[in-house]
Amino acid sequence: MALTPEQAREIEAERNESRPTRRVVSPGLEEILFRALPVLDHGFVRVIDYMGDDGAIVQAARVSYGRGTKKVREDQGLINYLMRHRHSTPFEMCEIKYHVKLPIFVARQWIRHRTANVNEYSARYSILDNEFYLPAAEHLAAQSESNRQGRGDVLSPKDASRVLGLLKDDAERSYKHYQELLNVTDDGKPMDDDQVGLARELARMNLSLNFYTQWYWKVDLHNLLHFLCLRADPHAQYEIRVYADVMLDTVKAWVPAAFNAFQEFRLGAVTLSKSALAVLRRMLAGEALDQASSGLSKREWAELMAALGRGE
Amino acid sequence: MALTPEQAREIEAERNESRPTRRVVSPGLEEILFRALPVLDHGFVRVIDYMGDDGAIVQAARVSYGRGTKKVREDQGLINYLMRHRHSTPFEMCEIKYHVKLPIFVARQWIRHRTANVNEYSARYSILDNEFYLPAAEHLAAQSESNRQGRGDVLSPKDASRVLGLLKDDAERSYKHYQELLNVTDDGKPMDDDQVGLARELARMNLSLNFYTQWYWKVDLHNLLHFLCLRADPHAQYEIRVYADVMLDTVKAWVPAAFNAFQEFRLGAVTLSKSALAVLRRMLAGEALDQASSGLSKREWAELMAALGRGE
Amino acid sequence: MALTPEQAREIEAERNESRPTRRVVSPGLEEILFRALPVLDHGFVRVIDYMGDDGAIVQAARVSYGRGTKKVREDQGLINYLMRHRHSTPFEMCEIKYHVKLPIFVARQWIRHRTANVNEYSARYSILDNEFYLPAAEHLAAQSESNRQGRGDVLSPKDASRVLGLLKDDAERSYKHYQELLNVTDDGKPMDDDQVGLARELARMNLSLNFYTQWYWKVDLHNLLHFLCLRADPHAQYEIRVYADVMLDTVKAWVPAAFNAFQEFRLGAVTLSKSALAVLRRMLAGEALDQASSGLSKREWAELMAALGRGE
Amino acid sequence: MALTPEQAREIEAERNESRPTRRVVSPGLEEILFRALPVLDHGFVRVIDYMGDDGAIVQAARVSYGRGTKKVREDQGLINYLMRHRHSTPFEMCEIKYHVKLPIFVARQWIRHRTANVNEYSARYSILDNEFYLPAAEHLAAQSESNRQGRGDVLSPKDASRVLGLLKDDAERSYKHYQELLNVTDDGKPMDDDQVGLARELARMNLSLNFYTQWYWKVDLHNLLHFLCLRADPHAQYEIRVYADVMLDTVKAWVPAAFNAFQEFRLGAVTLSKSALAVLRRMLAGEALDQASSGLSKREWAELMAALGRGE
Repeated sequence: MALTPEQAREIEAERNESRPTRRVVSPGLEEILFRALPVLDHGFVRVIDYMGDDGAIVQAARVSYGRGTKKVREDQGLINYLMRHRHSTPFEMCEIKYHVKLPIFVARQWIRHRTANVNEYSARYSILDNEFYLPAAEHLAAQSESNRQGRGDVLSPKDASRVLGLLKDDAERSYKHYQELLNVTDDGKPMDDDQVGLARELARMNLSLNFYTQWYWKVDLHNLLHFLCLRADPHAQYEIRVYADVMLDTVKAWVPAAFNAFQEFRLGAVTLSKSALAVLRRMLAGEALDQASSGLSKREWAELMAALGRGE
Repeated sequence: MALTPEQAREIEAERNESRPTRRVVSPGLEEILFRALPVLDHGFVRVIDYMGDDGAIVQAARVSYGRGTKKVREDQGLINYLMRHRHSTPFEMCEIKYHVKLPIFVARQWIRHRTANVNEYSARYSILDNEFYLPAAEHLAAQSESNRQGRGDVLSPKDASRVLGLLKDDAERSYKHYQELLNVTDDGKPMDDDQVGLARELARMNLSLNFYTQWYWKVDLHNLLHFLCLRADPHAQYEIRVYADVMLDTVKAWVPAAFNAFQEFRLGAVTLSKSALAVLRRMLAGEALDQASSGLSKREWAELMAALGRGE
Repeated sequence: MALTPEQAREIEAERNESRPTRRVVSPGLEEILFRALPVLDHGFVRVIDYMGDDGAIVQAARVSYGRGTKKVREDQGLINYLMRHRHSTPFEMCEIKYHVKLPIFVARQWIRHRTANVNEYSARYSILDNEFYLPAAEHLAAQSESNRQGRGDVLSPKDASRVLGLLKDDAERSYKHYQELLNVTDDGKPMDDDQVGLARELARMNLSLNFYTQWYWKVDLHNLLHFLCLRADPHAQYEIRVYADVMLDTVKAWVPAAFNAFQEFRLGAVTLSKSALAVLRRMLAGEALDQASSGLSKREWAELMAALGRGE
Repeated sequence: MALTPEQAREIEAERNESRPTRRVVSPGLEEILFRALPVLDHGFVRVIDYMGDDGAIVQAARVSYGRGTKKVREDQGLINYLMRHRHSTPFEMCEIKYHVKLPIFVARQWIRHRTANVNEYSARYSILDNEFYLPAAEHLAAQSESNRQGRGDVLSPKDASRVLGLLKDDAERSYKHYQELLNVTDDGKPMDDDQVGLARELARMNLSLNFYTQWYWKVDLHNLLHFLCLRADPHAQYEIRVYADVMLDTVKAWVPAAFNAFQEFRLGAVTLSKSALAVLRRMLAGEALDQASSGLSKREWAELMAALGRGE
């Protein structure tokens, strides 16, 4: 991630201001507010604003007049109850706003979550920067044979080097031609004074999907947790999972009690199907079962054994 | 509106706290934060929390790194542009949370706006207060003859008194029986120690639609303005319009530039249909038109004349 | 449920029409289309229209050009996979539209599900019918002592009779006064020709929450299943659960493969928290545990035992 | 647009089936159902399914039991009323599902409309086809000088040829390298049996934004009209406008009365700001005004004159 000096200055200027407010304040988020938390080679996540804290969840669940005098422990208990019983509306009462810089192919996955507000940097209006994602060698993996939408073994150093060479050359050429189409230099000057530049809304189509874009993304806590549940999952693509991981840290700093409940009842929890539950009951009754006698499919059996921490 | 002493104390306690924050602050909203702004005979609107200000709209539209150094006048210009061209996403970057006390029949209209977050006081879990709406005599009107869903002339004092008598008697009886069903006194004690009370989730069905409920309601600025456009409109029912009016004041205090743009391009604006526009062009070309020669229906002609400020 | 003869005729007239279409057709839904399926004493659920079937889920998951030639068994397999892995978007590709008649207090719970389209009968525009919900004696229960939002023991016949008397008298009086306020008889004539009627939008506030309203409600399959998951649950209030139960039958008739998957991976499934899972692993390893030694709270222990089918 | 023979066969097979249904049928849509309506050089729009017709809008507005016996003319009147007064919920009762093939940069604009259901072809799971968008020479335009997000003059033939050369070469190379990264030939065979292919979820990042993707997109009529209002607008980018234009035709075939109302009260209508309205009143009162004396900004004056059909 390379912030320009001007961007770094703007961020510091904003961090240096402090104003009094009657609203609730999250000390954990105030600490990191506006900072660019690095992700991938040029990306970042910045918390720009937030509304509410753990207490706001409790307050909304009770529709109360003030903050109440309840103890932290009671708040955790109520928040656990709400999370377990999927009473989601009190979690919607907290809101957070991020500024995210991310490769376009990641943005395209991300935007499938529709219950959020988005303002993306416009490549119709402005010129995109010359920044594209190149995976680190250890993340370059072959197509998985068992999972049609996953990765298998990491590439050999030689293969990785060939792949990175292709990706880099193509991205560099594609940006160079983008500038030629626009008739504009790195300094924003015309390349050739006698030439007109192609409309920005057209020229952008020459860029590849690993170029970085950026957006403001605002979401309530309930929908954020749902997003993180899906995107911090091991089955999610690595390049979006690293964003989810950084955002999990911001949730922990913001609403620690809700984060605890989320770990206990979502991230660390497991859902057993009706059939898996029946198998489990037989096991607890002392029956010795293997996949064949369980009646489960191979995949379901493997998943159940994994959930129960038994080597398959 | 009658806050209990305890409620008033809780609100004052919260108003008296002040904490430092790095977030943007709206001085206008800080001033009124948590205060119960009275509406109707027992209702209120309280601003509980907010996120963003006029600058946040501009910042999101530009996807910028800091607050920028732009002038207030330039911000107003950009906000006007966004409002005129219905670029709604930057307005979604501001969020506000209200605590509202309102009659159930008003709540039922309000909830039809689905793009908001709601936590309502639960009458399955708690007992509703003995508070119901009785219109002031000057708002008791006959059914309109020309508009199937509107009010006509105000009732005569004698009729108004008869109507209020009926409404009051029925509401009082319905609450008295609600308590009998629950087997509970005003003090929350059993009426009769040898009796069991009906489940709260059933007893509530005896209450009439003018009883007050309350909720936390959270919404982004774009959707709030849409709500206000419809509910501050003269065609909206009086009992919801008075809530919208109080909320308009909170918007003005919160985001004055967005409020200006809203007045100019929504509240004070008028939309002319294709046919009305064609008639207007003929008028400007000097043609003398009346309803018959215009080709418009009577209603459309009347609406056009009203928009143009011409006595029909 | 009492349909007027005219309503019954209109429904039959619509059922008797048959038109050719190129769209997919669900034989199960065609069979019951437009029929009023009775719920409670005066309510109903009618399926008015639908889009898609099991095949449409598969087709959307594959973004395919035609219906494909896949076998039913393969479709069930893919649908199971989608359900288990919470790939919800293909289920959003099916849509259903209901006409529902339901007590207002049920409607108020229902409407909290915001991801649906609703058109409710307008009591500003029209006069509500004289129909209100009275629970059958076996559903009149005392407030639960252990669960603040549930029912306990069924009332004694004597208590039930007293309760029903109160509810019935109040509802009848409230409707009688509603008509007096409106100055209208059962036949829609003025009660008193010299009198004006109160505006409908005001008079309705005198009705109690057990009066019936009706609406058109349209929802996609994914959001419908989420609704049914919450409302067909034993913790849901009886009066909304009976609607959910009837709608479950319509889902089974409409998309049998999706319904199977829903039973297997949602209705019949159980989610174990991180702590419950750890306890389960210890049990499977042969440790003899009770609530105290498990480290779980009493409620969590009881829920785990119930899930595992062990008498507590 | 080039359908493969197999795709064309699948479409024809589906078109040839006809089934009886009790649901309402739109003859206009049945006529074109499943057909690929061509857009741009390789794109298309196909109507896959639909629910409702003009009558369904009326039926929902009235919450009626049957189709009613109203005349077409009365239906048009009610639909006009609903459209003018922005009663949007009855329009939400109709639903349509499209299969769309479109360049990725168009898909990225399109997806900003969040109130729809989407299933996109997965490039994690499958390999994208070798199809990319190349603008026709007459749509290659220079950046507009007056409008930061628009197009100005069409390029000279020489410039156009140079631009197309760049775009074509880069897209072809990018696809060739995509296949090399995947180690796969046009026939889906390994290029080199001793080589492993890069994971599909990574390889796709080498493709440029003019490559085609495809999705199933389902939306209700109200939100579709909102989409078309914005995307059939002359200010929308040409490459999305052509999709909107084709979809407008499908709306006309589907719900002709709603389409009429949409033209009269949206597409052909104009909204005048508070200030513009004041100026208009002065003009109608006979005052001779120009931009300076009007008090409007140059842009507002120009827009008002354009709306009034007066040469600026």
